[in-house]
Amino acid sequence: MNISQKAASPATVSEKDMANAIRFLAMDAVQKANSGHPGMPMGMADAVTVLFNRFIRIDPSMPDWPDRDRFVLSAGHGSMLLYAIHHLIGFADMPMSELSSFRQFGAKTAGHPEYGHALGIETTTGPLGQGISTAVGMAIAEQMMAARFGSSLCNHFTYVVAGDGCLQEGISHEAIDLAGHLKLRKLIVLWDDNRISIDGATSLSTSMDQLARFRAAGWNAQAVDGHDPEAVAKAIDRARKSRKPSLIACRTLIGKGAASMEGSHKTHGAALGEKEITATREKLDWPHPPFFVPHEIKSAWEGVALRGRAARETWEIRRNASRSKARYERTVNRDIGPETARRLAKFRNEHREKATKVATRQASQMALEVINGATDLTIGGSADLTGSNLTMTSQTQAITAANFRGRYLHYGIREHAMAAAMNGIALHGGFIPYGGTFLVFADYARGAIRLSALMGLPVVYVLTHDSIGLGEDGPTHQPVEHLAMLRATPNINVFRPADIIETAECWELALAEKSTPSALALSRQALPMLRTTDTQENLSARGAYILREAKGPRDITLLATGSEVEIAVQAAEKLRAENGVEAAVVSMPSWEKFEAQTDAYQRRILGGAPRIAIEAAGRLGWDRWIGPHGTFIGMQGFGASAPAGELYRHFGITPEHVATEALHLIGRGRKERRR
Amino acid sequence: MNISQKAASPATVSEKDMANAIRFLAMDAVQKANSGHPGMPMGMADAVTVLFNRFIRIDPSMPDWPDRDRFVLSAGHGSMLLYAIHHLIGFADMPMSELSSFRQFGAKTAGHPEYGHALGIETTTGPLGQGISTAVGMAIAEQMMAARFGSSLCNHFTYVVAGDGCLQEGISHEAIDLAGHLKLRKLIVLWDDNRISIDGATSLSTSMDQLARFRAAGWNAQAVDGHDPEAVAKAIDRARKSRKPSLIACRTLIGKGAASMEGSHKTHGAALGEKEITATREKLDWPHPPFFVPHEIKSAWEGVALRGRAARETWEIRRNASRSKARYERTVNRDIGPETARRLAKFRNEHREKATKVATRQASQMALEVINGATDLTIGGSADLTGSNLTMTSQTQAITAANFRGRYLHYGIREHAMAAAMNGIALHGGFIPYGGTFLVFADYARGAIRLSALMGLPVVYVLTHDSIGLGEDGPTHQPVEHLAMLRATPNINVFRPADIIETAECWELALAEKSTPSALALSRQALPMLRTTDTQENLSARGAYILREAKGPRDITLLATGSEVEIAVQAAEKLRAENGVEAAVVSMPSWEKFEAQTDAYQRRILGGAPRIAIEAAGRLGWDRWIGPHGTFIGMQGFGASAPAGELYRHFGITPEHVATEALHLIGRGRKERRR
Repeated sequence: MNISQKAASPATVSEKDMANAIRFLAMDAVQKANSGHPGMPMGMADAVTVLFNRFIRIDPSMPDWPDRDRFVLSAGHGSMLLYAIHHLIGFADMPMSELSSFRQFGAKTAGHPEYGHALGIETTTGPLGQGISTAVGMAIAEQMMAARFGSSLCNHFTYVVAGDGCLQEGISHEAIDLAGHLKLRKLIVLWDDNRISIDGATSLSTSMDQLARFRAAGWNAQAVDGHDPEAVAKAIDRARKSRKPSLIACRTLIGKGAASMEGSHKTHGAALGEKEITATREKLDWPHPPFFVPHEIKSAWEGVALRGRAARETWEIRRNASRSKARYERTVNRDIGPETARRLAKFRNEHREKATKVATRQASQMALEVINGATDLTIGGSADLTGSNLTMTSQTQAITAANFRGRYLHYGIREHAMAAAMNGIALHGGFIPYGGTFLVFADYARGAIRLSALMGLPVVYVLTHDSIGLGEDGPTHQPVEHLAMLRATPNINVFRPADIIETAECWELALAEKSTPSALALSRQALPMLRTTDTQENLSARGAYILREAKGPRDITLLATGSEVEIAVQAAEKLRAENGVEAAVVSMPSWEKFEAQTDAYQRRILGGAPRIAIEAAGRLGWDRWIGPHGTFIGMQGFGASAPAGELYRHFGITPEHVATEALHLIGRGRKERRR
Repeated sequence: MNISQKAASPATVSEKDMANAIRFLAMDAVQKANSGHPGMPMGMADAVTVLFNRFIRIDPSMPDWPDRDRFVLSAGHGSMLLYAIHHLIGFADMPMSELSSFRQFGAKTAGHPEYGHALGIETTTGPLGQGISTAVGMAIAEQMMAARFGSSLCNHFTYVVAGDGCLQEGISHEAIDLAGHLKLRKLIVLWDDNRISIDGATSLSTSMDQLARFRAAGWNAQAVDGHDPEAVAKAIDRARKSRKPSLIACRTLIGKGAASMEGSHKTHGAALGEKEITATREKLDWPHPPFFVPHEIKSAWEGVALRGRAARETWEIRRNASRSKARYERTVNRDIGPETARRLAKFRNEHREKATKVATRQASQMALEVINGATDLTIGGSADLTGSNLTMTSQTQAITAANFRGRYLHYGIREHAMAAAMNGIALHGGFIPYGGTFLVFADYARGAIRLSALMGLPVVYVLTHDSIGLGEDGPTHQPVEHLAMLRATPNINVFRPADIIETAECWELALAEKSTPSALALSRQALPMLRTTDTQENLSARGAYILREAKGPRDITLLATGSEVEIAVQAAEKLRAENGVEAAVVSMPSWEKFEAQTDAYQRRILGGAPRIAIEAAGRLGWDRWIGPHGTFIGMQGFGASAPAGELYRHFGITPEHVATEALHLIGRGRKERRR
């Protein structure tokens, strides 16, 4: 393959002309919006023109072609770079009118590139460091697909444009270490080495030798003049031939081309002004009005699309001839079929009969053993807590640089990169990633978890050790606010199952999601099987349900999740036996699913009796369910270091305390006490 | 100064004996608790014995001596290493009975080291990567104190023991880049290079050349046999002489000394078992019962304390003779005096008279201009958003490797390291750090923000661009769940001021805190001055107050924070003018402060009328204040990219919508509509 084949372009059009088209579209759009970032698109226009003109294979007429090269604009604030190119190569949803509506309501040209908002945007970027780390996941998925289907069906590169911010963020360290370790040779990062950040020169805050840093992580690293097309092309050529992931430091001037502001941090995040832009038109000999690109330059850019389309058509011939076609399609479509749900239903029946008592983290592993046997699309992993998160099953061999047929990623002690890589694997397509850490360390992955939710990706977070129930590790490891943090985040299912039955149900629900990530909060400690009715219906699908109804009218309703449902049940039994008080117990494995039910269903479940909520976490959010006269039993502050049972007693999360509060709440507390 | 002067110890006691004391105390304590991590204390016992025996200057009889060396156990799971040493050198609160109560309720020996829980614990560790990053802040503070008071009053080292986890976490990248850039020569990190993590060999997940990595970041890096005392001592000697921060890779065997499990990841996180420990007693010729250390070995360790005490006493003579003594004491005690509050009160009066309309981020800068002029203890900074966060004032010159007299840290694009460094600066003592980023990027700093709260440190987070009001940058930059995330976290003040007056009040409250961090959520957009009464009393101190009362009985109460208080006021005026409806407006700059008020105050503020809450964020938590029949007007999901005004209209956060909902709520909506 001739890897540096230029697209057939009119002889009179140079890559400099093509790059200037990007520059002026970026300047004009930011100027009109009076908001945005022209400096980066102008600085990287030369290098990215070379990348697209000579290398990248994408087909705007079929943006989702599975074997396309991936292009990730990690420095997402330079979104006009991407939009300009999408316009120039002919994405149907990116006419010039969209560029001139940059950053306006409803425009395709959002402030930062948003996955799903316009065609061909491979991932949402803007929060720095996410793009490069998500790209690591994409490159992992590419290698996994190639290992399964061969290079005739999967053989593409993942290109990234990253800025100083991306490389300063901690997540980049986690991601490049993982990429170097896995020898992701088809990952190529172009670093916009403009030595400018928002505060001024990068020398204000860093003295890092980035080339040495990337080499230490097992990368191939080169430095070139980012404004020299041939040098950039040669570097990309070499990078494509490397057996390692590659960094190409493109030494650039931010705002390159600007009449007087070239190289200044003032070009970073604001419009240049009409005067500067007019002067720049003269300097660059660009006598065209705003939002206009001469036909021959547009034609040159369209050559990129023609080359991509030809590659895609050739690939389709190969795919159609492949004996693996059906399996390939199932994989690309992430079609896990009905078998998984069928086996999980059987699993629930078995364990209801056996009344299996296990920690929900162990129940999760048992469910995963079923799931991973029923589908080969799930990809497990853990941020170095495999034996604690229980995310490995008999089917999940480790993925290594030498074996991408595996199904398990040892992500290392890198929660943030794990989450971003899972996003990348899901975005690439072909797999359903799940990954484990302790619930408290969801903190470390917050930036990427938020993007899972914002992009609507079907990834699953396995978050074990979900309360003070983890015991002796103490308050640094005991989540208190994390359920609220996750519940407050839009578009993420937060599941906190109470027993093995609910755990299997929640896994089934998580795998059924197409555009919502899930977080499973799981216990370290063993929990009894609590389901009282048959297990045909997935009761967790309703979010909350009556686990134990009162005999006759309810005196009180106990709401609980996860490990505290057992405590609610014990309290209810105690209240009946000792006080003749009838309590219903409502298990609430998912607030989000419950909120989606009808008002009538919600009213029936919550009932008219006074309510107590029990959860070994903070109160925030529970007032919605208990109302102004309800009681919350949980954590008031941080936890402590001691065996779990002692902590539950110390913090008053016990059946005895629930019963006492229940009696108070229904006006019998004082009387009971006086006996 | 003889920098490798050994403590005077009985000639018969070797450092190997001293190290073995650590090993057996760790083994015995973990065995008795049946919980904990013996592998790391055993592996690092030799190197850390050398560090303490020959170098570290601390005085157990005065643990808070300001010029002590700082020792940070970044690999906090190895807490028994620290507790054993504290016992051996004679910390008063660490008798043997505490070691034998390891990880039990109420013991000083918590699962992970917790700042404030036992004497001499310099910072809370356990969440990996935090210790090394916090230590960077301590080393910055040391250099700042030395620049202000000279080396006779401030001249100590910050030593860190870090594990593979610490170095894999992304935060370590941010921290070491910052440390290398600032040439923190008195920061020395001993890396427990045992090549084992929880999942097994580190080769499962990393191929990083750590020495090359640290050198790329501007560090001095050495590698030694961690079980060779002389080699370790020489390396520490060299590190102390280096002009750069230093990494010493101590090649060790995890669980070093264990009879059969030496080098195995099985020693990492579980008791070794009676049998193994018995065999280890034989192997290491340690014929002593559990929790017993022979007198001569204990005496040898106590030499560390004697040397420390002598150093402290010598230092006190210097301090007492210093002409800077008074100023030094004020600094160490973080005594900002009454002047700051006095000037802020004047500031509030002036701006109430002028009715100054500015964004609260700008109000914050104006308040900081006053604060930084009234005290020199505040240290500003931003994660490369200085011009957006508006955290710099005329008094805050940049801190650089050549000038630690400055008062402003360009933290770079490193939110997590910024937060950890602020923790370290606060822990070191002498300064009150504040640092800025966008509210949405509190996500990136979550791990360290949680530790600010858990440790109770007086640091201030300046979190600007606090809602969709930031406009065109779109949903990646628009916080929705972050106020809930922060409010759910115990022991942190979340302030969302509505105007310039409240902003100054909230700054005053934040600076008055001794053991609670504060987060200021500030607007990008301009907000009018709203205060209707005089500004003598700091009304924000009550958390919520009636900004605008109804004339006569309230028909409705509008609750709002920050930029939405203006909308509430406009809605109230509209309701009165157009509908004859009397609405009270309650501004709630801080839920935490309001929760601390009496029930009577809370009832008076909230009133008996129906309530509507208005906040451009998610609903979670608001039901507590609006009750079951209230209405919430805010965000249902993520934001969008458009000018702020359009977004407010699109999401229905407008006076018109508030008024309509108010009329519905009080039963007049239908009638109004039919007219």
